[in-house]
Amino acid sequence: MRRTSALILIGNEILSGRTKDENIQFLALRLGELGIPLREIRVIPDIRETIINTVTEMRAKYDEVFTTGGIGPTHDDITAPCVAEAFGVPWEFHPPTFKLLETYFGPEEFNAARQRMAKLPQGATPIVNPVSLAPGFSIGNVHVMAGVPRIMRGMFDSLAPSLQKGAPVFSRTWHTTSLFEGTLADGLEDIQNRFPDLDIGSYPFHREDGRRGVALVAKGQNRAEVEEAASAIHDLIKTKGGIPIEGEPPV
Amino acid sequence: MRRTSALILIGNEILSGRTKDENIQFLALRLGELGIPLREIRVIPDIRETIINTVTEMRAKYDEVFTTGGIGPTHDDITAPCVAEAFGVPWEFHPPTFKLLETYFGPEEFNAARQRMAKLPQGATPIVNPVSLAPGFSIGNVHVMAGVPRIMRGMFDSLAPSLQKGAPVFSRTWHTTSLFEGTLADGLEDIQNRFPDLDIGSYPFHREDGRRGVALVAKGQNRAEVEEAASAIHDLIKTKGGIPIEGEPPV
Repeated sequence: MRRTSALILIGNEILSGRTKDENIQFLALRLGELGIPLREIRVIPDIRETIINTVTEMRAKYDEVFTTGGIGPTHDDITAPCVAEAFGVPWEFHPPTFKLLETYFGPEEFNAARQRMAKLPQGATPIVNPVSLAPGFSIGNVHVMAGVPRIMRGMFDSLAPSLQKGAPVFSRTWHTTSLFEGTLADGLEDIQNRFPDLDIGSYPFHREDGRRGVALVAKGQNRAEVEEAASAIHDLIKTKGGIPIEGEPPV
Repeated sequence: MRRTSALILIGNEILSGRTKDENIQFLALRLGELGIPLREIRVIPDIRETIINTVTEMRAKYDEVFTTGGIGPTHDDITAPCVAEAFGVPWEFHPPTFKLLETYFGPEEFNAARQRMAKLPQGATPIVNPVSLAPGFSIGNVHVMAGVPRIMRGMFDSLAPSLQKGAPVFSRTWHTTSLFEGTLADGLEDIQNRFPDLDIGSYPFHREDGRRGVALVAKGQNRAEVEEAASAIHDLIKTKGGIPIEGEPPV
């Protein structure tokens, strides 16, 4: 069964360049392994209407939607109330989470700002945060996680076992440093036409140290077809006078 | 004057996790310096309708739109014809580019696949590619660049002088490792309310080596207000018993 997912990164720090994203590749790989590959990613600012509209659009379009960012205690952390609004439910104290955080911080430190982290959309299920306790949450097909990479990864590990898996995707790669895309393009298109259910990808690389070449990837849910296409890719590189090397080029 | 931009990353390699993005932060920082800050980023697969619809939506919404990826010689490189379609113009040979590439490759090597790279949407202006010659292009407010980071950066350097600049954004940061967001949140909201035209951001960090804390950022187009807000942030950290440290926390 084919399942799809989308990712929404919420907050200004990626858009301004202040922060380099460290979440996309982790989630892309993990969701691929679970058979729920990412089909779209959006990075949006923490503006109320933008968050509500994006969540509403994406949750209708994809099987699962993941968000990161905007669930801390400060005034710019507005993801949770916006998701509640997108689902048309109140954003209210979640008693078990309130108790958990109250015990952790102690009554003195558990101020109004921190109490916000104990509020969830009505009907949401907390996502356990093994790093800093304040949870994410799932509501319907939307899964709301922290933006700090260490915390996001902890939350995703908590969440993953409960996600419904899709059919796994198989992938085989050959690369060469002795030919370029333009020489291989026609033959590669023939291979794509022979295997219309696979994704046949061509990824040129050009390293800072001057190493250049192209990686050719066959990917799909039918393992036998992937193997067959990969062997056609190998033969194509040889036919064109190049040296095929198995796997991805070293970074 | 406020100007805005958006970025569209086209291709399956970021979505599958095969490739780690190396373009977002570069473009976010450079566009911020030019006063054309990024307001939205989308990562989309190389599917015709998706590219056409996304370009159409984004170019109506933002002053400038930048795309990366999908302009090579292979069958999955469909960005250029899709952008032509979004503008309702033909995708046709651009004689000076055809000559440039024909001379470079020589008649033997300049095959049908490579000739595709000499086609531009009618009326587009090439963006010089100082790395591997095959150009990107601008049409209207849409700027189409390669996805390979080294080539993208070269193209952006060619393009940047012709972009209309906006008002520069000023930014000042204080961080602390002795307090957390929850203690600072209320005071920070007061500062945001005092300076409604600024973005007051709170960015917790949590390093692999255990260093934790929070960075507080004041950002906006009025330099005097940014300085005033930054000094209020400094005082807030001190008042709460923390040690304010100027600038971003070391990575």
